[in-house]
Amino acid sequence: MAVRVAVAGASGYAGGEVLRLLLAHPETEIGALTGNTNAGQRLGALQPHLLPLADRVLAETAPEVLAGHDVVFLALPHGQSAAVAEQLGPDVLVVDMGADFRLRDPADWQRFYGTEHAGTWPYGLPELPGGRAALRGARRIAVPGCYPTAVSLALFPAYTAGLAEPEAVVVAASGTSGAGKAPKPHLLGSEVMGSMTPYGVGGVHRHTPEMIQNLGAAAGEPVSVSFTPMLAPMPRGILATCTAKARPGVTGDAVRAAWAKAYADEPFVHLLPEGQWPATASVHGSNAVQVQVAYDAAAHRIIAISAIDNLTKGTAGGAVQSMNIALGLDESTGLTTIGVAP
Amino acid sequence: MAVRVAVAGASGYAGGEVLRLLLAHPETEIGALTGNTNAGQRLGALQPHLLPLADRVLAETAPEVLAGHDVVFLALPHGQSAAVAEQLGPDVLVVDMGADFRLRDPADWQRFYGTEHAGTWPYGLPELPGGRAALRGARRIAVPGCYPTAVSLALFPAYTAGLAEPEAVVVAASGTSGAGKAPKPHLLGSEVMGSMTPYGVGGVHRHTPEMIQNLGAAAGEPVSVSFTPMLAPMPRGILATCTAKARPGVTGDAVRAAWAKAYADEPFVHLLPEGQWPATASVHGSNAVQVQVAYDAAAHRIIAISAIDNLTKGTAGGAVQSMNIALGLDESTGLTTIGVAP
Amino acid sequence: MAVRVAVAGASGYAGGEVLRLLLAHPETEIGALTGNTNAGQRLGALQPHLLPLADRVLAETAPEVLAGHDVVFLALPHGQSAAVAEQLGPDVLVVDMGADFRLRDPADWQRFYGTEHAGTWPYGLPELPGGRAALRGARRIAVPGCYPTAVSLALFPAYTAGLAEPEAVVVAASGTSGAGKAPKPHLLGSEVMGSMTPYGVGGVHRHTPEMIQNLGAAAGEPVSVSFTPMLAPMPRGILATCTAKARPGVTGDAVRAAWAKAYADEPFVHLLPEGQWPATASVHGSNAVQVQVAYDAAAHRIIAISAIDNLTKGTAGGAVQSMNIALGLDESTGLTTIGVAP
Amino acid sequence: MAVRVAVAGASGYAGGEVLRLLLAHPETEIGALTGNTNAGQRLGALQPHLLPLADRVLAETAPEVLAGHDVVFLALPHGQSAAVAEQLGPDVLVVDMGADFRLRDPADWQRFYGTEHAGTWPYGLPELPGGRAALRGARRIAVPGCYPTAVSLALFPAYTAGLAEPEAVVVAASGTSGAGKAPKPHLLGSEVMGSMTPYGVGGVHRHTPEMIQNLGAAAGEPVSVSFTPMLAPMPRGILATCTAKARPGVTGDAVRAAWAKAYADEPFVHLLPEGQWPATASVHGSNAVQVQVAYDAAAHRIIAISAIDNLTKGTAGGAVQSMNIALGLDESTGLTTIGVAP
Repeated sequence: MAVRVAVAGASGYAGGEVLRLLLAHPETEIGALTGNTNAGQRLGALQPHLLPLADRVLAETAPEVLAGHDVVFLALPHGQSAAVAEQLGPDVLVVDMGADFRLRDPADWQRFYGTEHAGTWPYGLPELPGGRAALRGARRIAVPGCYPTAVSLALFPAYTAGLAEPEAVVVAASGTSGAGKAPKPHLLGSEVMGSMTPYGVGGVHRHTPEMIQNLGAAAGEPVSVSFTPMLAPMPRGILATCTAKARPGVTGDAVRAAWAKAYADEPFVHLLPEGQWPATASVHGSNAVQVQVAYDAAAHRIIAISAIDNLTKGTAGGAVQSMNIALGLDESTGLTTIGVAP
Repeated sequence: MAVRVAVAGASGYAGGEVLRLLLAHPETEIGALTGNTNAGQRLGALQPHLLPLADRVLAETAPEVLAGHDVVFLALPHGQSAAVAEQLGPDVLVVDMGADFRLRDPADWQRFYGTEHAGTWPYGLPELPGGRAALRGARRIAVPGCYPTAVSLALFPAYTAGLAEPEAVVVAASGTSGAGKAPKPHLLGSEVMGSMTPYGVGGVHRHTPEMIQNLGAAAGEPVSVSFTPMLAPMPRGILATCTAKARPGVTGDAVRAAWAKAYADEPFVHLLPEGQWPATASVHGSNAVQVQVAYDAAAHRIIAISAIDNLTKGTAGGAVQSMNIALGLDESTGLTTIGVAP
Repeated sequence: MAVRVAVAGASGYAGGEVLRLLLAHPETEIGALTGNTNAGQRLGALQPHLLPLADRVLAETAPEVLAGHDVVFLALPHGQSAAVAEQLGPDVLVVDMGADFRLRDPADWQRFYGTEHAGTWPYGLPELPGGRAALRGARRIAVPGCYPTAVSLALFPAYTAGLAEPEAVVVAASGTSGAGKAPKPHLLGSEVMGSMTPYGVGGVHRHTPEMIQNLGAAAGEPVSVSFTPMLAPMPRGILATCTAKARPGVTGDAVRAAWAKAYADEPFVHLLPEGQWPATASVHGSNAVQVQVAYDAAAHRIIAISAIDNLTKGTAGGAVQSMNIALGLDESTGLTTIGVAP
Repeated sequence: MAVRVAVAGASGYAGGEVLRLLLAHPETEIGALTGNTNAGQRLGALQPHLLPLADRVLAETAPEVLAGHDVVFLALPHGQSAAVAEQLGPDVLVVDMGADFRLRDPADWQRFYGTEHAGTWPYGLPELPGGRAALRGARRIAVPGCYPTAVSLALFPAYTAGLAEPEAVVVAASGTSGAGKAPKPHLLGSEVMGSMTPYGVGGVHRHTPEMIQNLGAAAGEPVSVSFTPMLAPMPRGILATCTAKARPGVTGDAVRAAWAKAYADEPFVHLLPEGQWPATASVHGSNAVQVQVAYDAAAHRIIAISAIDNLTKGTAGGAVQSMNIALGLDESTGLTTIGVAP
């Protein structure tokens, strides 16, 4: 019997992407679709690429609409998920693609989001140490942020293998869909095409504490992260360059071996052959993560680079992957490692 | 038992796209992959988005390599398909994604391609009148050009319904992958980003006689086509604007009714609701065709516009669709109408 | 003594472009800058590319602010120019970059803009027959629309030379800056990158009557125009493909001769050598118009194509060129035919 | 009397950009233009944006062609400049936009370029400490690499002011024109649009020793640089994110003060107001450098970010600026700080 799924926030980019993936998922059936400001509109006008759902009409995000589903995906603005989740029974699998339940430290939440902390849910990054165990049978899942997904997967082997000093420097470029669908002047096509620009520099980006949390857990000690995000002139994709000083005695071979071991059995994370570097185009629309690592002997630094699709592995694909684990399905069901390129 | 498929020319854009689709096709199994200049190379270095095939190595395009498959896709430069096809038995389904067997008139071929005409194969555009009948059981298929696919599907209802004068004016923009993967200065990213430019103006583009052939067949009389192609700053997609003078007495309602009737039962061609217009992003990576039509009473013209993905419906998707028909599979097997957007 | 210039609407794209050009104009001095919703803000935050003006602060668009200037450029939303212009004395040169005073026929205005017609000012397209004479000494100038500039300059020689039937078919692609800086979902970078889409199809675009007006004047008889605009994934540029059926007996040589004659002495319009086609990148940031023309004997049609920068020659550059003529300066002062490419 | 200038390598991107700037330079006159593989071709076919030079024909790069000019710009492949320069008299100002004479250490040259070191010329980055003095009256100038220009100007105040540890981590994104005009598959528009990808990771990029040289000179001690370049989907622009650990006791105010002091009198380097970040679009086609700096107290790092146009300030604009100094002209002659945006 099909798993019945509702999506709250179906008109935005995360909501659209989870629908795109669910349409190809053999075990799910798409139920209620909601969207507050767009309630009453045809999905065909809002997500014209989802032709099979074109005649669906969005409902209000209300408990009675979301009731009666096995899984509810929340693609809501930060701070709105807790109130909706409370009204859904404990047997419903609630997958929150917002930030509300990602952080473990209430002080971090308060500092970066400015409101009261709603709690902490099992964290939807199966590839992290202990990641899958936390998700099996879960009925609440906090989907990671897109940048933390890219950065944690690129760099955590450095810390589980004890190869790097606990001070990471991360510079990551994201496609514009990461900034959402609400129209703002600096996100206009006229502004972003032909331009690269940083934002949230100096440790103020909200994804920073999440990276610190993940890398620190891998290291078993606090890790500082200097994080600089950039907006890139492309709709999708994150390219994350993550570097850290190598511990004394580290060699290039040791680095490569640590990464090879970490990803040997991962269905979605691919360590590229030496000499080949990740490209966001190669993972466009796919749940794959391309990773490569180098050791710069002159600078004594490890440089690990990952490419993901911010909407797929970085949001909705990661969400579906975690749903699969929680429900006991094969982890890869409905997901692909094949990108749409060129 | 799986249909065993070989792809000749697997390193280019058409070859890569057919492999992307075949990887998701439940009835096929990917056999030999060939590529002359790239023979001996790993596919992972040439098509890094096709992760499941990364370790495959390209062979030479030779008869003994292509032997023993049920289907052979040819993604070769124009003029090379006939020699390869000759060496494949009559029971093998040969699907030519090049131009060699599209035109019926040897004089057209000679004029536009400058060599001797190789022949005419069943034409792989199932949506045209009589299109499916010609493909059922076929063992040779000529896949249409990308522009003729977009233009014929946008405009043929005008001619089957007798609504338009036999003089079409077509202006179509294509993404750069339509120009192939051979590096040329005018196709560099530095040149194409931020720029639109026409080419092949004045009836000299090789796809012109194919449009004339298709629209003339629909009209039952010769149709002239003024065709202007443009290179657009995007990797994929064709947006074709096709206009023709309306016959006397034509009304907007009659126009809409003709298009609605033509596409009522088509799995891949979608006539959009009034007021919504095709966008290439909506069909990115999908086999769908978005079509809209308007009647401009002041100018007495019908304007039909289509959006396709030039590599999917315009090349490899159309090829797989036709293969499905020829083999007696469900026409939509392995194909999607869902685009990857934004 | 420098010409003192004010710009009303300095925070938008047209306002920013006219400032960019005036900064390089040796005879002008930039005075008041206004912008209603942005009044009080530093220009550096709104137009970060105009470094020399970064510390200027926008004032309200009020008569006392605009008083005391020799020239006032209006870059205001449609319908707002008349009220501002009324408050400026008859000796002030008012250059309206909006649509308010472009159309001669009040019924056209009423039909396409829905409000009462404000009047008709001298039309700022010097290259049209009689264009310069109308501008010399003028104190009110209506700057043409960007599409009508591109289309009229591409095609008018067909009509002054009597070569074409009075039914033009125009398909033109525009960069996104033509849609302005007000944020709307369909103009987001995520939506426009990688996509082409038409809009205003079927004669409903507001620039259609202006094209009809210009081409009809050149022809000396009514000319119908079927106009289809497209949004292209680039910030700037218009590529206009304009075709019309050739009159009986027209030859390719006659066509080329007509275009060569029309532009022989034009400082900004360049008829390209045969075989070379316009590209929007080549006129990026310049006031040049690249034009090419072909005669398609098989389809009996003339195809004329132009490339302009929609913000420069299509708006602010055309405005400065017309200002120069009105003030008796050399027409090219402060303007360039050199594009910024690649 | 005008300074007579020749350009060797006029068909490439650096050559085209220097011509674009010289056309607007009031003190220069453009003489011979050469280009080996393109000798005999019209410049209009190769650089269609340079309309005033369209009818110029390229000559061979030969001593007799370059003779008789006051200045010769070399825009040649690496390794070819020395042979040409030798044939030009000591009174001719030779400005090399290639890499040949940038490095002081022959071992560095040998390691990164693999040939014998040709020598070291005065270094064309006037904003560095002692930079202008080295250029006054010079008759040989080595124009810096584009990345070293962006990185050195972003970060050197950290070292002249003694604020940072001598280990810099740099991640920089470049537009595709930085990779030149020679067609290669990975530079095709189809490949680069929608994609970001790193290259030359791990200290192997040829610009690394040049950064080390510049930052070390500023610091007065060796500085290591971990440099990761990325190809970004835009034709022009470099965004360089440069970070270094702060020395003990450093404060945000001290950081800001050091940068403000370093650029107080610089005509082209603009420290943005707090809260505003550099964007490559803002310096498109201009010689300006936008810089911003932040101090991340949690990570104890200084993050300095610059945006330049790689072809203007990063190559040809820097070359013209240095030429102006060498010739005793005003440093800003013919250059602008105004970008072409959006």
